[in-house]
Amino acid sequence: MKCRVCGETASIALRSHKTAFCDTHFLIFFEKRVQTTIRRYGLIRAGDRPIVAVSGGKDSLSLWALLQRMGIAADGIYVNLGIGDYSRVSLEKIKAVADAIGRKVHIFHVPATFQRDITEVAKVLRRAPCSACGMIKRYVMNKICIEKGYNLLLTGHNLDDEAAALFGNVLYWKKEYLWKKDISLEEDEGHLSRKAKPFFLCSEREVAAYAIISGIDYIYEECPFSKGAKTITYKNILGSIEESSPGTKLMFIKGYLKELEEIKRSSPHEGFRGSNAGTGYCGACGYPSGGGLCGYCRTLEKLEIPYSAEFEEYG
Amino acid sequence: MKCRVCGETASIALRSHKTAFCDTHFLIFFEKRVQTTIRRYGLIRAGDRPIVAVSGGKDSLSLWALLQRMGIAADGIYVNLGIGDYSRVSLEKIKAVADAIGRKVHIFHVPATFQRDITEVAKVLRRAPCSACGMIKRYVMNKICIEKGYNLLLTGHNLDDEAAALFGNVLYWKKEYLWKKDISLEEDEGHLSRKAKPFFLCSEREVAAYAIISGIDYIYEECPFSKGAKTITYKNILGSIEESSPGTKLMFIKGYLKELEEIKRSSPHEGFRGSNAGTGYCGACGYPSGGGLCGYCRTLEKLEIPYSAEFEEYG
Repeated sequence: MKCRVCGETASIALRSHKTAFCDTHFLIFFEKRVQTTIRRYGLIRAGDRPIVAVSGGKDSLSLWALLQRMGIAADGIYVNLGIGDYSRVSLEKIKAVADAIGRKVHIFHVPATFQRDITEVAKVLRRAPCSACGMIKRYVMNKICIEKGYNLLLTGHNLDDEAAALFGNVLYWKKEYLWKKDISLEEDEGHLSRKAKPFFLCSEREVAAYAIISGIDYIYEECPFSKGAKTITYKNILGSIEESSPGTKLMFIKGYLKELEEIKRSSPHEGFRGSNAGTGYCGACGYPSGGGLCGYCRTLEKLEIPYSAEFEEYG
Repeated sequence: MKCRVCGETASIALRSHKTAFCDTHFLIFFEKRVQTTIRRYGLIRAGDRPIVAVSGGKDSLSLWALLQRMGIAADGIYVNLGIGDYSRVSLEKIKAVADAIGRKVHIFHVPATFQRDITEVAKVLRRAPCSACGMIKRYVMNKICIEKGYNLLLTGHNLDDEAAALFGNVLYWKKEYLWKKDISLEEDEGHLSRKAKPFFLCSEREVAAYAIISGIDYIYEECPFSKGAKTITYKNILGSIEESSPGTKLMFIKGYLKELEEIKRSSPHEGFRGSNAGTGYCGACGYPSGGGLCGYCRTLEKLEIPYSAEFEEYG
């Protein structure tokens, strides 16, 4: 197979785009696609001060480095869950990228604040680790934005992540999630930052290729708690459909975004969140909450730990 | 496993309903479920004169026999596609049920009208056999309704059929089909009969069990053209999800119906078909058409055969 641009031997074939590229032209193709997505959906606007949620994996580190190459300076935010080697190696990779691009990373240490790691926090809450992790991440990532004046939180969610989650939402027509999934969410001023996902239309394979070709060193291991998750089943199902019908994942997600746009147009006030807002604010810390104390404050209360949410700053 | 009702040894376990039944109580359970569906969605109304689209398979013959047991007298309509033994055996099974329940069946012979079987008709049209078959079936089934005063066409589509088709529609967000799939479609008076699918919420396995336990002799073979169809891939995918999460198919379809109801409520005039109507009527025969001649009349024109649509009446 030949590179579509220069005719040299291709290093990656993209069946869903019916094309193939050498390393150099793949990087250009990929960056252009992300740029187009950012522009088409207005993900990053003039005057924005974005921050990237980094985990140490290929998606978030690629996004961070790519933004830098595009001339968009963004700091990072990392939540250290205290999961042994997994968390330690993740942080190393993050620091290496931070050094390379010359940006700062804010680090929230779960063990320092909660006096235990995420599995033990989850046990106390009688929740799955992923549920406790999501709650804490959403809280501290939002807090750093509001406190430090970042008005936009960027995450590395890719097409495969989004398609798998959407698959589950559609399979069970989960109203509370279905039409709320979006490529970006507006801010609730002073309470909740804007959010956007520049890799929404880039497959996992494309992002991995981008990381490898551009020499980004990331942690290969997945979070140990992701094993057996339903989204992995859905990813496999979509992967096998994609195998026989290339382009399906992209059509699934793009078709959904179009449908969502129409729904938002035809019923703008029907609880489809154009904004990111919760239903109220926490009585203790003032950040968004479903009602009463927010999950973060309730967790601290349960653990009998006074309120704190400190960050280490690196770089 | 014990029958939930009588405690005798169960002959069928229904994991999606978390229950099990002996033969007798399964029949009662199944018929009650169908009755509930008919009532809940107003599928059959007082004064209706329904006709059942029969193919010789388990779904349509079970529906036909079940309606008779429920005291709903319905004739049948069968389209003989001229596919060798498959069509011959199908018709035999249909006639046996017609005899058993004492009802009439109208038979449309594709070879008699088109002077060739469905595969040859499809070739002339440069369409897949399934596409030509669907077009002819819709036409003649509607025609028999309008001509003979049947105001309601009932089909045996089951949960698995509907879930697989919906799966394909959602995967590609096919606007032209997605929100048009429904458990019933209203009539376009004088042009298009009402349609309904009483087995919409009954799985293929449940219908097969009903046919076998109640002694309905049906053709086991599937239509030879159904092999390799995408809906079969989707049925397998949904089957494997159902295996690990019983009840998924039913939730998928019920969730969709709920979503559809909301969409119809919030935008009743936006082309979501509450009615069954086409966009116009055929200049030759007067039946619904997408514009100009209908597919049926165009086919006859292409074959240089004068218009005819005759039925044989059996029973």
